Amino acid sequence: MRNPSLARLAPVEPSLQEPARTPGRFIDLVADKLVATEVILRRELDSDVPFIHKAGAYLADGGGKRVRPALLLLCARLLGHDGEEEITYGAVVELIHSATLIHDDIIDHAALRRGKATLNQLWGNNLTVLLGDWIYTKAMQMALSHGQIEVVQRLCDATLKMTEGELLAFERLGAIDLTVDEYFEIIDRKTAYLFSAACSIPALIPPRRTDAGPALARYGRALGICFQLVDDLLDFTARESELGKPVLSDLKEGKLTLPLILLLPRVRPEEKRLIETVLEDRSFGRVASQQILDLVSAQGTLDEAREMAESYAAQARAELGLFAPGDTRDALEFAPDYVLHRRS
Amino acid sequence: MRNPSLARLAPVEPSLQEPARTPGRFIDLVADKLVATEVILRRELDSDVPFIHKAGAYLADGGGKRVRPALLLLCARLLGHDGEEEITYGAVVELIHSATLIHDDIIDHAALRRGKATLNQLWGNNLTVLLGDWIYTKAMQMALSHGQIEVVQRLCDATLKMTEGELLAFERLGAIDLTVDEYFEIIDRKTAYLFSAACSIPALIPPRRTDAGPALARYGRALGICFQLVDDLLDFTARESELGKPVLSDLKEGKLTLPLILLLPRVRPEEKRLIETVLEDRSFGRVASQQILDLVSAQGTLDEAREMAESYAAQARAELGLFAPGDTRDALEFAPDYVLHRRS
Repeated sequence: MRNPSLARLAPVEPSLQEPARTPGRFIDLVADKLVATEVILRRELDSDVPFIHKAGAYLADGGGKRVRPALLLLCARLLGHDGEEEITYGAVVELIHSATLIHDDIIDHAALRRGKATLNQLWGNNLTVLLGDWIYTKAMQMALSHGQIEVVQRLCDATLKMTEGELLAFERLGAIDLTVDEYFEIIDRKTAYLFSAACSIPALIPPRRTDAGPALARYGRALGICFQLVDDLLDFTARESELGKPVLSDLKEGKLTLPLILLLPRVRPEEKRLIETVLEDRSFGRVASQQILDLVSAQGTLDEAREMAESYAAQARAELGLFAPGDTRDALEFAPDYVLHRRS
Repeated sequence: MRNPSLARLAPVEPSLQEPARTPGRFIDLVADKLVATEVILRRELDSDVPFIHKAGAYLADGGGKRVRPALLLLCARLLGHDGEEEITYGAVVELIHSATLIHDDIIDHAALRRGKATLNQLWGNNLTVLLGDWIYTKAMQMALSHGQIEVVQRLCDATLKMTEGELLAFERLGAIDLTVDEYFEIIDRKTAYLFSAACSIPALIPPRRTDAGPALARYGRALGICFQLVDDLLDFTARESELGKPVLSDLKEGKLTLPLILLLPRVRPEEKRLIETVLEDRSFGRVASQQILDLVSAQGTLDEAREMAESYAAQARAELGLFAPGDTRDALEFAPDYVLHRRS
């Protein structure tokens, strides 16, 4: 089950000089299509069932970075597609991602996401479980609409992996002995597979590009790992106002992430005990969050985790060598920088 | 949203003389294929994730009546199919049904199902939410394997309806003023659509039988309503040992079903108050279950609900007139009797 090779991938030379471009601009080329995706999301998140109508509008208003649709649309553009399919599939990957978050927030007892109350906080767990089910199924229904069965298979495979990643993570919740390999196994399933599906689905849109699919899948997977590494870093480094949720949420929820996993074998027993206490208490009642932040700062493991994220970013970029130079390839080469430099 | 026509369908003459055949025998013709479905269920309910391996085996061992796969297999046989597709689809409808039950049991705080502890009782809500997600997606992945996209569309549509039925039911949980129309709207979505999909999917297996699809869909839908009416009756009439869960569970969970909905406008305020008390308390602490049973017995609404079930059974049977006589048509004509006479 474990996949040690993922954690031990030969590091690609990290880009030492960051490009001078502005993070976030990588989506400009597909801005119109992203707007179209948004229209579809809002239209499809509706039903004659009053609760779906209400909660769907709340979700559509809630925003989100729309990273997965943006990547899917850029990869479609890279392959010369300019149709309806990629807009639908962009909405579909965002819906699958949303359904996962909705069920995760139940499990994590999360009250805030993107600075707004979570659905479970507003409407309780029961309606929220059912809404997540509805959105998963809605996403599959939409994905079927263009008759491209392999696209739906790719989405099912990724969704199964995501759920498995969540299950693995939940089974190890609160564990102080989570290994680096287990951590990478979890983030690979939980995050990287859907990124990989988002980037490679355009190669399945007719005319199919079997030559491009595997490279785009690897691009997405490396970028997905990079994305999750950065996500986990932001839990240490971002301000609550930027993140829309409390800092050190992960540890408080019982989740060890890479900076602490790397740190644990190096610290004194009483320092390890601080981390264990938060994992056990699921609160910062007996240990101040600053104590944990001081520890990681002293050990430099945030920098180490960041270097690994940069290495995956470089690996993603390297997959693009196959494609002809141009503005779309530039944008996809720049996406890892956006991921590395985002503040939320 | 309401569909009053469903509750007001012109009653078909109920069969006054029950056939002399034994309930349960209607599946004999597809017994071999049901065994094959069981093998697939057991094989697919597995994963390298330890929790899925464990809980999947528990589910596969847990049994169940397998009514939906049996109907799907019989309808396939009626159309002359004898291949792998119907076995796969039989397993798929059972998995979708299972995933729904798994999430329902969380919502109902149910501790027992089919005489065994529920997954939420054994492993808690969080793992159980994720396992339900995994099974839904697994079912869709399996359904895709024969490349028949319309089958998967039919399954997605039915799954959306089921989830909507559950949401409607949950929004009206504890309501003393649930109407007959609302009740039928809920059971139609919650149960009848999946029965309808199970019965009509065989018409989508090549060579497609567009002539047969609508009649089989209507057969399944009427039979599904009949099934749910009987299910709700059994909550009043069956013994706990037969049902595998406490009698009057529905009322205790805040759910009004047809016998009580029909009864409420006819009883005295203090009798209505008894029902309200259980709905409010979600327990038989202040009202004895026997008091409720005496009420329905005095008003005769169990018989009225049963007559409606028989009317839907007759309506289902009437849809089969299109098909050539033979042992498979006989079995499908007998299925409503099995549904009407089952004790659990």
